[in-house]
Amino acid sequence: MELKDIGEFSLIKKITKDIFVDKSMVIAGVGDDVAVIKTKSEKYSLLTCDVLIEGTHFKRETITPYQLGKKAIAINVSDIAAKGGIPNQALISIGLTKDTKVKYVEEIYRGIKEEAKKFNIDIVGGNTALSKDKIFVDIFLIGEIEPEFLLLRSGAKTGDKILVTGNLGDSSAGLEIIENLDFKFEEKIKIKLKQAHLNPCPRFVEGKIIAKSRLAHSMMDISDGLSSDLAKICEASGVGAIIWEDKIPISKETLAFAKSVKKSPLNFALHGGEDYELLLTSPPENANLIIQKIQGKTETKVSELGEIKDKEFGIKIVKTDGRIMPLNTYGWDHFRM
Amino acid sequence: MELKDIGEFSLIKKITKDIFVDKSMVIAGVGDDVAVIKTKSEKYSLLTCDVLIEGTHFKRETITPYQLGKKAIAINVSDIAAKGGIPNQALISIGLTKDTKVKYVEEIYRGIKEEAKKFNIDIVGGNTALSKDKIFVDIFLIGEIEPEFLLLRSGAKTGDKILVTGNLGDSSAGLEIIENLDFKFEEKIKIKLKQAHLNPCPRFVEGKIIAKSRLAHSMMDISDGLSSDLAKICEASGVGAIIWEDKIPISKETLAFAKSVKKSPLNFALHGGEDYELLLTSPPENANLIIQKIQGKTETKVSELGEIKDKEFGIKIVKTDGRIMPLNTYGWDHFRM
Repeated sequence: MELKDIGEFSLIKKITKDIFVDKSMVIAGVGDDVAVIKTKSEKYSLLTCDVLIEGTHFKRETITPYQLGKKAIAINVSDIAAKGGIPNQALISIGLTKDTKVKYVEEIYRGIKEEAKKFNIDIVGGNTALSKDKIFVDIFLIGEIEPEFLLLRSGAKTGDKILVTGNLGDSSAGLEIIENLDFKFEEKIKIKLKQAHLNPCPRFVEGKIIAKSRLAHSMMDISDGLSSDLAKICEASGVGAIIWEDKIPISKETLAFAKSVKKSPLNFALHGGEDYELLLTSPPENANLIIQKIQGKTETKVSELGEIKDKEFGIKIVKTDGRIMPLNTYGWDHFRM
Repeated sequence: MELKDIGEFSLIKKITKDIFVDKSMVIAGVGDDVAVIKTKSEKYSLLTCDVLIEGTHFKRETITPYQLGKKAIAINVSDIAAKGGIPNQALISIGLTKDTKVKYVEEIYRGIKEEAKKFNIDIVGGNTALSKDKIFVDIFLIGEIEPEFLLLRSGAKTGDKILVTGNLGDSSAGLEIIENLDFKFEEKIKIKLKQAHLNPCPRFVEGKIIAKSRLAHSMMDISDGLSSDLAKICEASGVGAIIWEDKIPISKETLAFAKSVKKSPLNFALHGGEDYELLLTSPPENANLIIQKIQGKTETKVSELGEIKDKEFGIKIVKTDGRIMPLNTYGWDHFRM
């Protein structure tokens, strides 16, 4: 059996099923994007890692090394932000091919350092290794959070409202533009969508506001697509969910682009990856308070797009014509592409 | 300018020269193998990462996936051990090709889990990503140490004795056997040397004994070869060194193998990589105490092989015939191979 037959998520289940952990110290381990560890101080440690691999996550021709470095930090900050935490230190593990230009590496590090500085992250070490064919940038990020503010994937409760920050689908629409440079399309829209893919902005401030408000039950960032990541919250929380198609926030740029290439904008929004928006659930009476808090303190919009149901309900979507359909999880699974 | 023109160590200097760090929290950062971070508890956090990349550090044909998983943990434990610390949690970031067999990945994880359990390490998370051509296993390990026991690269002082655990060169001799399977040679010796390369045993107990004794000034593990790693201690400490060729500990197996392939055993011992022995310096009056302590509590031998000198002296080796020569640092630099 090969990986393409079972996909990433079944593989992870298989290999992690008898992982040894000292339950007394590990609040959340394998199964969340961030490990949460008890420490002797009053705060929990947050540990996460995420990698960008040439040929899988980027092509050298379509992202500058500076953007690559920035993005490698940003996607890790997004994970910490989605717990409501703050990042502190990073290790940079980088694999470089022998023919890499020194200038190229310096540009990756310029991006890393600039993005790290923005979030007050100390680069404290790492590793530089020769990679035969492809470059990779693997970042380990350590953060912290007060226990009372921590939000996990596993906290969603039946009756919760489902909320999401920003718009969904811009990043995958941007990727499609990047990979098909001959699309004739309005330059301003192209640039905006490409930026969403190349230069994602983690919802750090929003994550902190939501966590400190203590109004939410669960949270994660959307890196594999709404359909796939909502399923992860449901699985971790032992619940089901329903979402309304017409409430899914899609930018006018993605709508226009989808129309021009005759694709469903919904496909970008539901199943596209790398939006790095926050997906959260809250008791119904808190949903509007959260929306007001975020919109009062930032320029980020928050949309309510569904509701948590019992596990038996499954995960469903109400189409614009009123039909209720199962929500298939076609999110990013590189092993099956 | 390409990486092969400047090599790994000049590259690291270049890219890390203006790294932003909050000095109040970071005891040791870039420049040691392990980052040392102040926490709010009485202990320091130790952070390290190390990667094994197919084609650079291993070939699928010559290491089993189980050995690969074990080794990936072991080399990281070695870094923590060389500070005198204990490891606590690990994140596993793994890049897999689409055609990888599920069984192969399970075997990597069997090795990871077994080695982690041995050192009481909790696997708390990680990342599984598609890699186009080559597999890699990148491990991020977090440990801790009491501040009073911490040993850094930078603590060596003029007059210190230079000590090393175990034998040097077995791992690189083993690698040579692995890569030239047609060598006609005594099977028992072949197996022992191959094991040194494929299944390294981090000097965890020895590291703790040395740290807790507070008899040493500096310590690191030998992963790039004695010549290269001694130079790192000298650079970090602002000192020079002299070592005696006839005091370098070489196993009878490496001696016999080197003789049969008409190579200098010294080349394996001085410039071979991946021995994962401890290299340390101590005040002269403590050297014998350290040797006795280790040999009283373990079966590991410790050899005194040189002395720390002023920086101006440089780094030199006394040949068996009495000549004093500069010690060239031909340690592993994959970018220049």
